[in-house]
Amino acid sequence: MTKGTEVHLVSRPEGRVRAGDFAVVRAETPEPAPGQVLVRNLVMSLDPYMRGRMDNVRTYVPPFPLGAPLQGAAVGEVVASRSARLEEGELVLHDAGWREWAVLDAVGAAPVSREFPPSAYLGPLGMPGHAAHVGLLEVAEFRPGDVVFVSAAAGAVGSLVGQIARLSGAAKVIGSAGTPEKVRHLTDDLGFDRAFDYKDGPLWRQLVQAAPDGIDVYFDNVGGDHLDAALLLARPGARFALCGALSQYDGAEATGPKNLVQAIGKGITLRGFLVDHHRSSKARFREDMGGWLADGQITWRATTTEGLENAPAAFLAMLRGGNTGKTIVRIGA
Amino acid sequence: MTKGTEVHLVSRPEGRVRAGDFAVVRAETPEPAPGQVLVRNLVMSLDPYMRGRMDNVRTYVPPFPLGAPLQGAAVGEVVASRSARLEEGELVLHDAGWREWAVLDAVGAAPVSREFPPSAYLGPLGMPGHAAHVGLLEVAEFRPGDVVFVSAAAGAVGSLVGQIARLSGAAKVIGSAGTPEKVRHLTDDLGFDRAFDYKDGPLWRQLVQAAPDGIDVYFDNVGGDHLDAALLLARPGARFALCGALSQYDGAEATGPKNLVQAIGKGITLRGFLVDHHRSSKARFREDMGGWLADGQITWRATTTEGLENAPAAFLAMLRGGNTGKTIVRIGA
Repeated sequence: MTKGTEVHLVSRPEGRVRAGDFAVVRAETPEPAPGQVLVRNLVMSLDPYMRGRMDNVRTYVPPFPLGAPLQGAAVGEVVASRSARLEEGELVLHDAGWREWAVLDAVGAAPVSREFPPSAYLGPLGMPGHAAHVGLLEVAEFRPGDVVFVSAAAGAVGSLVGQIARLSGAAKVIGSAGTPEKVRHLTDDLGFDRAFDYKDGPLWRQLVQAAPDGIDVYFDNVGGDHLDAALLLARPGARFALCGALSQYDGAEATGPKNLVQAIGKGITLRGFLVDHHRSSKARFREDMGGWLADGQITWRATTTEGLENAPAAFLAMLRGGNTGKTIVRIGA
Repeated sequence: MTKGTEVHLVSRPEGRVRAGDFAVVRAETPEPAPGQVLVRNLVMSLDPYMRGRMDNVRTYVPPFPLGAPLQGAAVGEVVASRSARLEEGELVLHDAGWREWAVLDAVGAAPVSREFPPSAYLGPLGMPGHAAHVGLLEVAEFRPGDVVFVSAAAGAVGSLVGQIARLSGAAKVIGSAGTPEKVRHLTDDLGFDRAFDYKDGPLWRQLVQAAPDGIDVYFDNVGGDHLDAALLLARPGARFALCGALSQYDGAEATGPKNLVQAIGKGITLRGFLVDHHRSSKARFREDMGGWLADGQITWRATTTEGLENAPAAFLAMLRGGNTGKTIVRIGA
């Protein structure tokens, strides 16, 4: 038995999630059975979609159980293997985050190389990168010359969407974010053509100024007012990729886009997606993204918190927009 | 000069449209100039989309001007021609409804045959038929075996969508309508597998009962609660054709679908359209629909009002759900 730290969900949020909904506990990890490996986690991902799994509602995936560790993407090192698939010392990407030690079926752990830092497999080379790539290029059917608008553009997914659009020949890339620092980051570091702070005034007015001739693609991480403004500014035949709904996640009342009727006259397509729907595109994504990263054509940033015991506070901060880029918790040494 | 009856828009509705927003007037029609024809209208179409054009807002098309006849699809007979394209006695489909006599550029008037009654060119062989055909088969990417749900299913478009779905191999066709008579019409006359009265209880509960295993296609003529229920019952990969938003047209406050977030996890595609976006499909539509009508495989019904002076009242009644099938005003003898 190996003893280590875990973060459990102990109560379902009423409205907004609070630190008291989590408990940091010491727990024993069983020995791996045949076909399993024991992994010591190094880094784990915090993602907005996790908020949905804290409620007792089946959304994309089943709710997190109470009194057990939460789950999520993590990269760890195999320290004991009872499977021929994995060797001790290998790094693996898996879904048993929120804990120091994990016993995993070897088939559920994907080996990753040491060419990039482990956290890259939680960001540009992981689910956020795949979501950005497939969401822009396939779901939104991006075409060179498109004017592209991305919300939560300084986040893990949005920051990659904007850069992929630029590299793929967008006429203009526009991003929204929630602080002046993030807005500067978009234009100065990530090459967005225009960026604005959505707290600075009515969304549609800011979007009109950034895109007076309208938009062809909207990559939605937010829903709510952002989606309404994008519908208003959409050009005929515009395509929207619906990736997230940050504005609706944490205790907010669901509000639908009042301007959806615009989709009729303009022939707009709105398409929701999860990366799980698009597994066949994974190879192309990895090839593209690996090349861009290796060549320095895509930059990425992480907001990193040290120590698993600080993960609940980091999660709350992320939901309030405290992160820039990928939100990471460093667990091991 | 020819003197005849016209219906003018004299004020923009505040909230719901009223009879006083229209005026029935006697007006003179000028002689046709070279390239023009003088047409005596026989039948005209009343369509829900006209309500949007009464407001001073550019939606699909520009607003109707005040103090002039409204516009809309009509079939009339050419009584004088100054164009080589059209002969006296021909029937033509054109966009100058709401008036007894019309002077038209011959290029804007499409000859129609006498094989079907003139009103057929305003219904199954006209814009409503094309919307049903292209909306189901192309926009919603209908596939045999799909479970199809249609709202306003007893209306001009919806009644055709259900029948085309049945003829094209749907596993199940479900319709909603607003009176018990219409519900019976759907199942007894039009071959819908299930139908319900949306006034009988919460939409989603009725849809669960009609489609316990979910739906693959939703053809939306209504928006609002209907769209929310369809999002809730959608199967993964479901496709929605957004054709109309009856619930939002007449003075109602716009309400977006609260359940749009479901589109993400289920990978739902929502696509708005106008028939004008799909002109290339017109030939196939005409061939299919002409064949189905000639063979008696598709039936259609019209709610017909006699006399142009009664068009305003008929329009108001249609917006309140008073029509079954296509709403027609008979103008000439």
